[in-house]
Amino acid sequence: MTVEIDISKNMSPEPELMCIFGTGDLGRSLGLRLLQCGYRVLYGSRTPHSCGPLPQGAQVMTHEESARSAKLIFICVHREHYEFLEKMAPQLERKVLVDLSNNLKKDMYMEANAVYLQRLVPKAAVVKGLNTLSAWALQNGLLAGRQVYLCGNNEEAKRDVAEMATKLGLTVVDKGSLSAAKEVEDFPLQLFPEWRMPLYVAVGLSAFFFLYLLIRDIIYAYVENDEDISYRIMISLANKVSPIMSLIMLALCYLPGAIAGFLQLYRGTKYRRFPNWLDRWMLCRKQMGLLALGFAFLHVIYTLLIPVRYPNRHKVISSVVNEMKNNNTTPFYFDNTKAWGADSLFALGILGFFLFVLLGLTSLPSVGGTLSWREFSFVQSTLGHLTLFLCTAHCYIYAWNKFLRTSTYKWYTPPGSMLCLIVPSVTLVLKLILVLPCVNRPLMRIRQGWERNRPKDEMGELKATNM
Amino acid sequence: MTVEIDISKNMSPEPELMCIFGTGDLGRSLGLRLLQCGYRVLYGSRTPHSCGPLPQGAQVMTHEESARSAKLIFICVHREHYEFLEKMAPQLERKVLVDLSNNLKKDMYMEANAVYLQRLVPKAAVVKGLNTLSAWALQNGLLAGRQVYLCGNNEEAKRDVAEMATKLGLTVVDKGSLSAAKEVEDFPLQLFPEWRMPLYVAVGLSAFFFLYLLIRDIIYAYVENDEDISYRIMISLANKVSPIMSLIMLALCYLPGAIAGFLQLYRGTKYRRFPNWLDRWMLCRKQMGLLALGFAFLHVIYTLLIPVRYPNRHKVISSVVNEMKNNNTTPFYFDNTKAWGADSLFALGILGFFLFVLLGLTSLPSVGGTLSWREFSFVQSTLGHLTLFLCTAHCYIYAWNKFLRTSTYKWYTPPGSMLCLIVPSVTLVLKLILVLPCVNRPLMRIRQGWERNRPKDEMGELKATNM
Amino acid sequence: MTVEIDISKNMSPEPELMCIFGTGDLGRSLGLRLLQCGYRVLYGSRTPHSCGPLPQGAQVMTHEESARSAKLIFICVHREHYEFLEKMAPQLERKVLVDLSNNLKKDMYMEANAVYLQRLVPKAAVVKGLNTLSAWALQNGLLAGRQVYLCGNNEEAKRDVAEMATKLGLTVVDKGSLSAAKEVEDFPLQLFPEWRMPLYVAVGLSAFFFLYLLIRDIIYAYVENDEDISYRIMISLANKVSPIMSLIMLALCYLPGAIAGFLQLYRGTKYRRFPNWLDRWMLCRKQMGLLALGFAFLHVIYTLLIPVRYPNRHKVISSVVNEMKNNNTTPFYFDNTKAWGADSLFALGILGFFLFVLLGLTSLPSVGGTLSWREFSFVQSTLGHLTLFLCTAHCYIYAWNKFLRTSTYKWYTPPGSMLCLIVPSVTLVLKLILVLPCVNRPLMRIRQGWERNRPKDEMGELKATNM
Repeated sequence: MTVEIDISKNMSPEPELMCIFGTGDLGRSLGLRLLQCGYRVLYGSRTPHSCGPLPQGAQVMTHEESARSAKLIFICVHREHYEFLEKMAPQLERKVLVDLSNNLKKDMYMEANAVYLQRLVPKAAVVKGLNTLSAWALQNGLLAGRQVYLCGNNEEAKRDVAEMATKLGLTVVDKGSLSAAKEVEDFPLQLFPEWRMPLYVAVGLSAFFFLYLLIRDIIYAYVENDEDISYRIMISLANKVSPIMSLIMLALCYLPGAIAGFLQLYRGTKYRRFPNWLDRWMLCRKQMGLLALGFAFLHVIYTLLIPVRYPNRHKVISSVVNEMKNNNTTPFYFDNTKAWGADSLFALGILGFFLFVLLGLTSLPSVGGTLSWREFSFVQSTLGHLTLFLCTAHCYIYAWNKFLRTSTYKWYTPPGSMLCLIVPSVTLVLKLILVLPCVNRPLMRIRQGWERNRPKDEMGELKATNM
Repeated sequence: MTVEIDISKNMSPEPELMCIFGTGDLGRSLGLRLLQCGYRVLYGSRTPHSCGPLPQGAQVMTHEESARSAKLIFICVHREHYEFLEKMAPQLERKVLVDLSNNLKKDMYMEANAVYLQRLVPKAAVVKGLNTLSAWALQNGLLAGRQVYLCGNNEEAKRDVAEMATKLGLTVVDKGSLSAAKEVEDFPLQLFPEWRMPLYVAVGLSAFFFLYLLIRDIIYAYVENDEDISYRIMISLANKVSPIMSLIMLALCYLPGAIAGFLQLYRGTKYRRFPNWLDRWMLCRKQMGLLALGFAFLHVIYTLLIPVRYPNRHKVISSVVNEMKNNNTTPFYFDNTKAWGADSLFALGILGFFLFVLLGLTSLPSVGGTLSWREFSFVQSTLGHLTLFLCTAHCYIYAWNKFLRTSTYKWYTPPGSMLCLIVPSVTLVLKLILVLPCVNRPLMRIRQGWERNRPKDEMGELKATNM
Repeated sequence: MTVEIDISKNMSPEPELMCIFGTGDLGRSLGLRLLQCGYRVLYGSRTPHSCGPLPQGAQVMTHEESARSAKLIFICVHREHYEFLEKMAPQLERKVLVDLSNNLKKDMYMEANAVYLQRLVPKAAVVKGLNTLSAWALQNGLLAGRQVYLCGNNEEAKRDVAEMATKLGLTVVDKGSLSAAKEVEDFPLQLFPEWRMPLYVAVGLSAFFFLYLLIRDIIYAYVENDEDISYRIMISLANKVSPIMSLIMLALCYLPGAIAGFLQLYRGTKYRRFPNWLDRWMLCRKQMGLLALGFAFLHVIYTLLIPVRYPNRHKVISSVVNEMKNNNTTPFYFDNTKAWGADSLFALGILGFFLFVLLGLTSLPSVGGTLSWREFSFVQSTLGHLTLFLCTAHCYIYAWNKFLRTSTYKWYTPPGSMLCLIVPSVTLVLKLILVLPCVNRPLMRIRQGWERNRPKDEMGELKATNM
């Protein structure tokens, strides 16, 4: 056994050199991180002798000098100052320019910064990317597992940048050619894009139900009985809208899955894309579920607050006083059925909310990430549908004795608790059909990659190991 | 200073080539990820000219051709199609075959897929692993920090695969030789294995206490007093079972630590393994604690709902009416001691629940991961025992005036609140003994690596830096 | 196209060799992890033939032999045993020694372990670091994204260690020269250092308000009315202190941001450091916010528990009885204004708490990490100030009808609800001034790097891409 090894050969040869144009906050933080990951760093600056404190171990030169020695050059300069790069185009030939710039607003310029850069220096390989990183995250080493986007026309240049980013602990997502630069530059300016649609739906439906109940409850009482119960807007009405919204949003979160199942069954394959509206709907299921949880949370607090409220205390006390006035001997008959009904209502609600919170917890990135695929599917599908079932049952019990009474239909409108049962009931029925063995078996085969219209012997490849 | 460096030498030479057999979902996603991490990718396919869209930058050849050029070959093909590999055994000689396959069910085949593969191609080095990754996670770059398992008979082959996996951002856990392949293949099919034991315990104990209280409360009232209070099953009974379960599960989560301490003291070393039952118990403490938190959460909501419930309203109103009927002049004497008792009960419960929620939050992977070892131990041990103490005190106050009354012992059985105090009291007493200075000092020394029966001069090694 | 590549060249040459002195828990776990990341591992031990089980694939030799072959040597030995290293100083010349040791207590030794080591072996390059890793985390692969600290006098040695740590999935933070070793060694012994100041503030203010309210409420009632309401300490008083604390802590969490804004406006630059007290205040805003959330949580549970409590039941029942005694015909007038007031109070509180919980959730590392900078600023600044506004309004409504009554000012002191409005009101007014367009525009320019006293043409560098 010869363990005598020449150390100089054993160590990785010379660490790679990275060049950074720009010595601002971002440039410094990036250089620091690159140094810590074992690269050598060279700054390019117009004023190499007076550019302030740089990370220890980095060198600084003029732009022209520094460009010569490195293959990768990070452009940490504002777009407005790109012109100087045009002048040094010869030195940048065949270099990889990583454009990290962002704009302050969307559509400030017609052309994406990176496209503009490529036009200035046509013979360099411009790669747009890493622009979602902030100087703060770079300095504090909060990069592990962060997703960054890259795009560029030169595949090899992109691969070099991707490799560097991987060493920094980032996860790279390739967005294709430089024509995607506009999209990549818009990323840091986005404000919850995946929440937009669910929020629109939630706000729209809430507004509708709020107005509907306002008319049915408060305006009706005012017009027909000349009673002013407007104070109910603050809590009673909110406590009717929030459970309705919670149930509907939860159902809307499981409905697209059922529709997709029927579509796959009908088409006999899983390899055809869903229609666009269904695709978008399926992508925002998580957000819909979380909004539903938010509404459920409000409903729980509103309900628990009922006995503390002034109107409730008033009701209890005056009901006793009335009771006494009428001199009833058995003043208050204890109705066992009513007790069962009321307690079942609460028990179902509590269990539903409990499971709902569990679902919410597993949708936390750090919790969901530790689950195996089968566990995740068990929680989100099995527990999810159980939650929907419990919450729907909770609502049915609440509404059950109102269906047949005509007094329920004020101004010929059904109560909100009845309206909100439509979507969850449909969802549950569709899901029930899908889990029937005779329907489920072909669906499972389709989801494992089987296709109805394809010869069997082409199926050798491992299509969906974990699906 | 010579910064003039030849770029071609500066860059890493030629990126390594990886070969993937199979162009299904998994193969494509894996190739995409490998390309993004800077590898070159070559697909092997039976039909290289018609295998559908592959990631940009990858090449495709026949199986035989592609096998020749790479050292690592990923097998992304279903087990049923492995036979073709036997035929090309000569080309696979001395190659590393990474078997990523999974089965649909446990025990579908006697022999693990990887063992079968090794039998078909005896001269290749088969490594089983990475099979917990889904195509979805690979495509979306959700790999950072994920744990993957490897096993195989060839150490060098395993090291090559581990290095590749590390570059992909994965965390590798070596499960030993290929005989562990069965276990590794069963991983993605597991459903919360670490939750199984705690759940059995929770369900078993809950069922016992539910029946016990059903008999003591509802059946007793029916038999002895001919009273039908069955409606209490839904909430009152559940609200007795859940705090009992919460307290016992919390105590069961700290009991094994105390037992382990006594065992270490008795043995005089920390280097002997605990008996199997204790080991398994200690491994599911976190799950026990979270179940206890779930029960506590239910208990809190059940309790807060009491005043909203119909039976409670009935009780309040009818008690007033009775009061009035009897024409008492000082209808309702305010009992200061009772007020103190009731409020202490609630105050202890609230503080206990508050700390309990804190404990639950620090057990979130992303929160716990940011704590230093000392902080984690402070939270889980010091705060944890404080929580147990507060909750036990809460229960003692609830039960204190019931111990001596004979009416408490219906049908000669103690009430549930008394039964559930046994385990937490024992746990607290054991812990109290362990923190006595005269007991704690030798225990600390043992936990720092000291051994009672070992000569002192062998103790040089750094045994437990952070323990 | 020539894909025929010689495999031996294609693979990375020979994996690098790492040497570990010490075969204790930490040494073994570190070796295991290094092996899994593709390094070769060589242990140095005094007793190479009897040092217990080592990770498979590692070799073991005497200290002297093993030191010769590797460049990096990990010192996993207790400080008390460092002397042997002095004797082998010649073999350690020009090696990189990574000191992973920790002490049991702060200030056990005058000199940091790493400084002592450097003194013993002056010609080696000592790097202190990685000492926050526990054997447990190493064994279980819980390293991804973990932050580790390094310090040392030799830049190249530090870079080698940083590169190795990066390969292990760690994130490296450079703490400078070896004089920082003491600080690095104190890290694992710290107990929530960033929580200390906020906790002091919280405890101090809580104690003040507790005493203040104790005197005003309970002692006042005892002295002036000879009434014993001491039972209120447990819940009523706690439920007054917790909302007061919650509101003040929340305001203290946004106040420093407003002060910093005015300071930047006054100075005309963002590049001058804030005074020390403001800097420290700004660094613990997150902790202040979380403490405020904890108090709010307590306030919510305390409030929801009110109707379950014995004193409340007594109050309800005796108020009815009094009502009846006085033989009122309209026993209980329903006051619409009062109902509006009470319900607005609750509605504002619920919405404020809801947003507060949202803020808390986004401060979870795994949730906050997925937000873009703009999203994070929207949540923490816009939603945060909205939360503060709602909670302040909640408190104003609670206190509104008390301002003018003289009976409020017991013993000439204002009630707690009035005192606690000062800080949030000031914070909101300051923030309001800062968002006025005429004030906000120059502030925004300053935060984008503009400086009032600096010539315009020096501003070319990308100062704050994502700010």
